[in-house]
Amino acid sequence: MEERAIALLHCPDKQGIITEVTGFITKNHGNIVYLDQYVDTIEKHLFMRLEWELESFLIRREDILNEMNSLFAEKYAMDVSVYFSDERPRMAIFVSRMSHCLYDLLARYRAGEWEVDIPCIISNHEDMRDVADQFGIPYYVWKISPDKSNREEVEKAEMDLMKKERISFIVLARYMQIISDDLIARYPHHIINIHHSFLPAFIGAKPYHQAYERGVKIIGATSHYVTNELDAGPIIEQDVVRISHKDTPDSLVLKGRDLEKIVLSRAVTKHIERKILTYKNKTVIFN
Amino acid sequence: MEERAIALLHCPDKQGIITEVTGFITKNHGNIVYLDQYVDTIEKHLFMRLEWELESFLIRREDILNEMNSLFAEKYAMDVSVYFSDERPRMAIFVSRMSHCLYDLLARYRAGEWEVDIPCIISNHEDMRDVADQFGIPYYVWKISPDKSNREEVEKAEMDLMKKERISFIVLARYMQIISDDLIARYPHHIINIHHSFLPAFIGAKPYHQAYERGVKIIGATSHYVTNELDAGPIIEQDVVRISHKDTPDSLVLKGRDLEKIVLSRAVTKHIERKILTYKNKTVIFN
Amino acid sequence: MEERAIALLHCPDKQGIITEVTGFITKNHGNIVYLDQYVDTIEKHLFMRLEWELESFLIRREDILNEMNSLFAEKYAMDVSVYFSDERPRMAIFVSRMSHCLYDLLARYRAGEWEVDIPCIISNHEDMRDVADQFGIPYYVWKISPDKSNREEVEKAEMDLMKKERISFIVLARYMQIISDDLIARYPHHIINIHHSFLPAFIGAKPYHQAYERGVKIIGATSHYVTNELDAGPIIEQDVVRISHKDTPDSLVLKGRDLEKIVLSRAVTKHIERKILTYKNKTVIFN
Amino acid sequence: MEERAIALLHCPDKQGIITEVTGFITKNHGNIVYLDQYVDTIEKHLFMRLEWELESFLIRREDILNEMNSLFAEKYAMDVSVYFSDERPRMAIFVSRMSHCLYDLLARYRAGEWEVDIPCIISNHEDMRDVADQFGIPYYVWKISPDKSNREEVEKAEMDLMKKERISFIVLARYMQIISDDLIARYPHHIINIHHSFLPAFIGAKPYHQAYERGVKIIGATSHYVTNELDAGPIIEQDVVRISHKDTPDSLVLKGRDLEKIVLSRAVTKHIERKILTYKNKTVIFN
Repeated sequence: MEERAIALLHCPDKQGIITEVTGFITKNHGNIVYLDQYVDTIEKHLFMRLEWELESFLIRREDILNEMNSLFAEKYAMDVSVYFSDERPRMAIFVSRMSHCLYDLLARYRAGEWEVDIPCIISNHEDMRDVADQFGIPYYVWKISPDKSNREEVEKAEMDLMKKERISFIVLARYMQIISDDLIARYPHHIINIHHSFLPAFIGAKPYHQAYERGVKIIGATSHYVTNELDAGPIIEQDVVRISHKDTPDSLVLKGRDLEKIVLSRAVTKHIERKILTYKNKTVIFN
Repeated sequence: MEERAIALLHCPDKQGIITEVTGFITKNHGNIVYLDQYVDTIEKHLFMRLEWELESFLIRREDILNEMNSLFAEKYAMDVSVYFSDERPRMAIFVSRMSHCLYDLLARYRAGEWEVDIPCIISNHEDMRDVADQFGIPYYVWKISPDKSNREEVEKAEMDLMKKERISFIVLARYMQIISDDLIARYPHHIINIHHSFLPAFIGAKPYHQAYERGVKIIGATSHYVTNELDAGPIIEQDVVRISHKDTPDSLVLKGRDLEKIVLSRAVTKHIERKILTYKNKTVIFN
Repeated sequence: MEERAIALLHCPDKQGIITEVTGFITKNHGNIVYLDQYVDTIEKHLFMRLEWELESFLIRREDILNEMNSLFAEKYAMDVSVYFSDERPRMAIFVSRMSHCLYDLLARYRAGEWEVDIPCIISNHEDMRDVADQFGIPYYVWKISPDKSNREEVEKAEMDLMKKERISFIVLARYMQIISDDLIARYPHHIINIHHSFLPAFIGAKPYHQAYERGVKIIGATSHYVTNELDAGPIIEQDVVRISHKDTPDSLVLKGRDLEKIVLSRAVTKHIERKILTYKNKTVIFN
Repeated sequence: MEERAIALLHCPDKQGIITEVTGFITKNHGNIVYLDQYVDTIEKHLFMRLEWELESFLIRREDILNEMNSLFAEKYAMDVSVYFSDERPRMAIFVSRMSHCLYDLLARYRAGEWEVDIPCIISNHEDMRDVADQFGIPYYVWKISPDKSNREEVEKAEMDLMKKERISFIVLARYMQIISDDLIARYPHHIINIHHSFLPAFIGAKPYHQAYERGVKIIGATSHYVTNELDAGPIIEQDVVRISHKDTPDSLVLKGRDLEKIVLSRAVTKHIERKILTYKNKTVIFN
């Protein structure tokens, strides 16, 4: 596989930006293998994803971001990120007591479906240690005391681990604790959560019981980036399944599990492939 | 088509009820052609729908409900309704300014898809008169004055019409006015509304704009019986369609129209077929 | 609404084409309001759709296609089509005896959902004349004699009508006759059919009965461009609905109707918006 | 959990059967906790599933089947099967080289989602041994020689293992070998396969490539019981996912994996719960 650069960029829309950006890459002998752009005609904002081969590219990879910023950042009020295909993101998994999302993530990882490293799994319970052991991934438990008095200490330890392991993004695989504002601030739009409802319906605790009480005919699951407001971050992916009056809260939990794991893993896939841009609490998802 | 009786009944679950009810029909020479029952194991409540041919049935049709009530109502705290296949329900349509649901209802009616009569269409605007004329259905307009001072008078006129036309149930085909408590009380769980969101998400006005603002990846529509609480009645049917960041409020409105008309018509079909039981603000829908 | 030009083009993929094409428009003072392109990395083929405002555009609209052809056609082996936003396509509907697709098309037309004219409806039966009359659209019936001896004559008459009415594309709204090769040749990838199955399953007659016999758990509908091979042309849109063992061929027909009309109308929408490119018996559908 | 008996039965439909069968259980002091029946009005055939508590039941569990047969089998031409809630079915998994379905099955098994035992995993390749080891399940490999000369010998060994392990049903988790008629005969409608297409479309090899070639807009997966005819056995469950012209055969394979594992596991769930009846190459699936 050829080494490639990936640029994600967005800015207020103006004539000629696409021509100029693609021209910059072509002129420097980059072979563009992926180009997708989208103009939000309401916000008048342009979003773009480019991928090009680096073999004959005249600019050194460590200079690409600077070069693009100096050319476009100020001129177009453009936000640019640059990634490289040979840099595997490092993903931390947070989990509590349920195994279905964790298994789904690890099975894909083991099958080589993702270009990602998973250096650690973090939990507030011992329950999932066996699963981590099955896959040979270090498992860290920090229990939150009932009075939550050790919370700060735990978060400090978690953040030290994230730093030590050079974690690029975090996946909450049905992790039943609130994430601290500090951790969110360190990983802005880089913490992916799965909420077991079709958001914004049934925010908060026990969504399947809420769905049962309301008598809905369809349930859903939602993966989103974590922000400071509960279950209100940018939505990455949703899916649904039809239910009926015959379903109980227990059967909803079972049906929902399949949704949760698939919807979470789809979001993780898009994140790993650097195909998500966030803007004004929404996501732009490239194909 | 053989003349048939349809019984919808529900009661606290007890051993032997199914045996006893089916026995009653068989013993009186009724040929059961449809039997579906469902036990809600959480509420411990039994729901049942029966359909049998009347040709050789020993009980006169005007006595069936009384007979079943005298046998079962007190003994089992059973709620019984009896309908007959040759009694076409009479449906009134309320509409405001949008034609998509109205056309869908009338096209099915004209195609003979439903065993129903539609003696009138009611509106607060003139806009849909042409459509009513196309199908030769009387169209009544009562405009609500800006200060809503004539509201009571309008409702009185509407109720008189419902009475005169012996309306059995009402369909709100994107009718943008609040239904009065009096009308709801006269048609308990017999007024079907279509709400253009996946309830309980986006209750109230402009749900597509709310969906756009929230950045959801799927939108829905919900048909439900009208109760005194806004958009909170028993849900009959829901469906959804996938959207993307490329959708604008306008494109959501267009995509949503197809959902709305299909989801409303599915609910109307079930209602006409007497396949819906309501219990504790939920529906049991028989196949 | 500003007058706009729309270009649909495709060619073998090469570096710099996007830059060059967008450059051509920008240089001539065209304001690009829509740009979407897609590279098929397997076929190494580029597909592109552009829309730009004509107000200040330096090239006269009657010269645009020539200009683009002279610049790109030979150089890039590019296929170019140019349309204008103020040219409403003229659509002919062919129908047999079922009204659901016809009503869905006409209701959208009447509601102003489409920028299209419908000068005529053609049938081999009288059944749908009432519906055409409801909407005030001329209805032409040519009956095919049982021995099909008048077939050539009928086709001749139909083609004369198409010509006289300057028909741009044809929609088969459950039209149960084979379309002649001549008509197909005159409207290559401009005749849209709805097949009532999830193609390529259940090609040919009575697909719902075939689906019932096979015991599938989901049924579908497929809209596609008509080619000389039965039910084998480029697929535009498909959708499905879940069924169960409780469904009969009759209930499948009813459930399928809703699919058919929605799937057909979605295809017509995309065609009218000039958002479909065909290549090697497949479609590229722009958003 | 109370010990319960489960009866699955079907027979030509006649008046009074439900009354008689439920009467038999009630009379013998069985407390019915589940009753679902379905009458195929075309085949005029009755299907029924009953579950009742055995605590006070007057008939010994080893005599129930005989008793029901003597009462109903001849009288109604009824086919009766009886199971007990405390008898865990024993499931064998056959797998080749892909892990996604295998992981999904084993993760559910480990999470306690199913009342089942998995005594062995059989393969024609070594690839999945690691996964079996992760879960501590014996893994047997019998390689088929290129000339297939050892086929009979392998099948003999497999059947001996099935017998020794008292296997009740077999799950083919993307097992890429033809199952012998002998094994099928020994497990009639007790071998569950997952086919990676929306059957009957794309029977046989490489369905994703076939789907890509045909240009479909939706792909599917189908779980079915294995019969002597390839991919033609009774369908248990199907599901689909929307694709677009942007998908390649490779991306279809990835999207399809999620379908395959979910659709296979749903079928396994229904089989374990004894909620499937087969009749005339179709399935009746109870809720």
